Amino acid sequence: MIIYINYSLWIGIFASQLRHTMTRITVAKGDGIGPEIMDATLKIIMAAGADLEIEEIEVGEKVYLAGNTAGIAPEAWDTIRRNKVFLKAPITTPQGGGYKSLNVTTRKFLGLYSNVRPCVSLHPFVKTKHPIMDIVIVRENEEDLYAGIEHQQTDEVVQCLKLISRPGCEKIVRYAFEFARQQKRKKVTCFTKDNIMKQTDGLFHKVFDEIAAEYPDIENEHWIIDIGAAKMADTPEQFDVIVMPNLYGDVLSDVAAQITGSVGLAGSANIGETCSMFEAIHGSAPRRAGQNTANPSGLLQGAVMMLNHIGQTAIAEKVQNAWLKTIEDGIHTNDIYKEGTSKQSVGTREFADAVIANLGQEPSILKPVNYANSASLNLPTYKRKPAMKKDLVGVDVFVHWAGTDANELAAQVKRMETDHVKLTMITNRGIKVWPDGFQETFCTDHWRCRFKPSDGKLESKEIIGLLSTALDVNIDAVKTENLYAFDGKDAFSLGQGQ
Amino acid sequence: MIIYINYSLWIGIFASQLRHTMTRITVAKGDGIGPEIMDATLKIIMAAGADLEIEEIEVGEKVYLAGNTAGIAPEAWDTIRRNKVFLKAPITTPQGGGYKSLNVTTRKFLGLYSNVRPCVSLHPFVKTKHPIMDIVIVRENEEDLYAGIEHQQTDEVVQCLKLISRPGCEKIVRYAFEFARQQKRKKVTCFTKDNIMKQTDGLFHKVFDEIAAEYPDIENEHWIIDIGAAKMADTPEQFDVIVMPNLYGDVLSDVAAQITGSVGLAGSANIGETCSMFEAIHGSAPRRAGQNTANPSGLLQGAVMMLNHIGQTAIAEKVQNAWLKTIEDGIHTNDIYKEGTSKQSVGTREFADAVIANLGQEPSILKPVNYANSASLNLPTYKRKPAMKKDLVGVDVFVHWAGTDANELAAQVKRMETDHVKLTMITNRGIKVWPDGFQETFCTDHWRCRFKPSDGKLESKEIIGLLSTALDVNIDAVKTENLYAFDGKDAFSLGQGQ
Repeated sequence: MIIYINYSLWIGIFASQLRHTMTRITVAKGDGIGPEIMDATLKIIMAAGADLEIEEIEVGEKVYLAGNTAGIAPEAWDTIRRNKVFLKAPITTPQGGGYKSLNVTTRKFLGLYSNVRPCVSLHPFVKTKHPIMDIVIVRENEEDLYAGIEHQQTDEVVQCLKLISRPGCEKIVRYAFEFARQQKRKKVTCFTKDNIMKQTDGLFHKVFDEIAAEYPDIENEHWIIDIGAAKMADTPEQFDVIVMPNLYGDVLSDVAAQITGSVGLAGSANIGETCSMFEAIHGSAPRRAGQNTANPSGLLQGAVMMLNHIGQTAIAEKVQNAWLKTIEDGIHTNDIYKEGTSKQSVGTREFADAVIANLGQEPSILKPVNYANSASLNLPTYKRKPAMKKDLVGVDVFVHWAGTDANELAAQVKRMETDHVKLTMITNRGIKVWPDGFQETFCTDHWRCRFKPSDGKLESKEIIGLLSTALDVNIDAVKTENLYAFDGKDAFSLGQGQ
Repeated sequence: MIIYINYSLWIGIFASQLRHTMTRITVAKGDGIGPEIMDATLKIIMAAGADLEIEEIEVGEKVYLAGNTAGIAPEAWDTIRRNKVFLKAPITTPQGGGYKSLNVTTRKFLGLYSNVRPCVSLHPFVKTKHPIMDIVIVRENEEDLYAGIEHQQTDEVVQCLKLISRPGCEKIVRYAFEFARQQKRKKVTCFTKDNIMKQTDGLFHKVFDEIAAEYPDIENEHWIIDIGAAKMADTPEQFDVIVMPNLYGDVLSDVAAQITGSVGLAGSANIGETCSMFEAIHGSAPRRAGQNTANPSGLLQGAVMMLNHIGQTAIAEKVQNAWLKTIEDGIHTNDIYKEGTSKQSVGTREFADAVIANLGQEPSILKPVNYANSASLNLPTYKRKPAMKKDLVGVDVFVHWAGTDANELAAQVKRMETDHVKLTMITNRGIKVWPDGFQETFCTDHWRCRFKPSDGKLESKEIIGLLSTALDVNIDAVKTENLYAFDGKDAFSLGQGQ
């Protein structure tokens, strides 16, 4: 079922004052408190003059329970792809039974590479231990460990691949700097663990440095994730925009949102090269549905990000300042109402009306935002770099072996050697155990055997030869990783202790 | 240079009162403030009656600068391995030039699988936003992404292997519960991301549940790391002992230490099956060296953990309570001295004397510890499980290809097929792009091609055949991952969208 509603008709008087072109967006009202907060949100942004045509789709619980495990019908999916901009209320994913998260599906298939989470304290109106906090976490959203590529190949060891790509890094880092510039922010910080993961996180850090150089007006810095996370959790006032790989961003965006004290009031954007999705970070709260008590602020924050993203920055600024003024006026829904601080307890609709009444005003205690005259984000599509010279210089053959003495394994594996290709190292969980291992090193049944050619040049067919011999001499080779040099530089890590 | 000092002679009067047997430990006084804080620490624990024979080694800056890139001479290494228990002051690793972290080397080669970090607030004596906080992070210390196995195999994509092993999980989880029992703690919490990494983090969670069942006297719970980290950073009073894989533990132990407000007062233990190392978590602070101003509390906390670990729990309790009493008396070194809260500003030596004067006393505001009568930790060495039935059921061949249309790649890769083995799926960064991909899915040059046999049974030689054909038809196969079923159950992940 697809419902077309042209809200822009009844707010035509506002829209006519604006210069930008109308944008058609897809809206899903979702489940639980979704419809109420979506109505409130749309009412506010339309009253502010958002120039939008709205096409509504149905996703979520009803669709799941009708037997669609993705929670979305193919036609609705087509609508999202056609309109490209998607404002989504929370949905309820039924428990168990193979239902897939619509968020994960949308993010993955639409290539929404950037997850953006503003985390701001509303002190003294919302309780927090961190009164001065106004940070934005920009999280890479497609790759890293969340590619979900896992294999168990021995009795004891399971593996997950962490993939970091140059386009992935370039896109997210550029987004962070463009966002910072649009929002008139001062600094972009990068968190990685590149002292340990020198190649994967090293690539992220390297790309950060490259792109930071294109934005001399914005301060930049890099922190090792452990110390950076500690500082962020303790003194968030030191940070502004923080960009990081997927896993770190997942954890730290939740930390940052939580310590603002206003996790229920936060929105989130998911940005791709062609499509984007905006939402509240909270869930559908089915038990509170239909009571006109829910706080629409989270979804409204998502909508403000949407308006900024599509270039309606003046409307975004107007809405955000009116919202801050309303919070500051003490007009609060039940979730943040507190005797002493709050002045008036209101329902969802009344809160929306209060924000609308404040349109055109600015907060005086909370910091007003200022991005009405900012340019749109400049996000060129990724251009593939010229290929480098790639030379095969060795291979890691991983062996499943239930013994304990690496010297014994070495003796067996050496039977795979040829005149040209020799065993040079065995590691267990990355620690060199042959040659010259330590007996204290604990070994699992998962051994990496590194083979290198005597002259530095390996042929692919020699790898096939090694595997054939392994089979002949009864060595259980469970996987291979080729060793390459790119433009003459080795592009693989050494063993610990090598 | 190795110096033997038998401190136990001059504290013989204390030692003679104790029942446990003397333990010989290795001590390194380190660099910067190391010697001062080590002297203070040893003086306190010996005065409390610690039954130790001390063998001193030299590690750190002098050794590095003498040309030893590991920062430790082979004889010193032998001493550590012989004595098994190592109390280490902070050292200075010279900048640049291939010097290796002695901590990493020690942890890896001695199999120190458990990193233990008590993080306690000393409110109101040390400033913190979290006055009620007394948690212990137990971090797996050997595996996970920190195995450091990285490969770049295409122009665009770099990979790091996350390895999680059953013995690794069993050892760390058991340690957490044993530690909790010894320290009379109530709850052990587990953090993982097993909703995404169902096999690797799933194994950690599964082992946690198995071992938790052996400790019915201790409460247990599991949190998804993002929400768990957010809760821990905001309301640490909800947690007690928290056990987690390496990367999460690295980040969150720094967060937890930082938010206590007393990161300079924290110690850490690194525990292996045969060896162990105890230290302060702070650095060597060379600029403050030799001034009798450093706070020895961090190293003293490490020493208390050491005493507990070797079963001298009564001495550990006595030292800890005297230390808490001293903090509470307002006798503070310069780093935590604060007008109003503190009563007396003292130097390193005077602080040690004050703790000694308090031996036998307990704090009255801070919570006294109570582990004098606790049993030693029961940490059996890992016993390998019987092998499961392992069946090869397919193979993922990863291909470097600079095209963009997955259908085109599929057509090429299908030339590798045999009557028995077929291409079933192609993913890019984990997302299914063939068959039935979406054009919005951003693709790198790193493609996973999954091959499966028509009857579910693959022979190893068929993988070799696939690779040979790939070579013949000019497909750049950069790595393989075998697909196995263990005891009849598939042990690999599906593609996103499969």
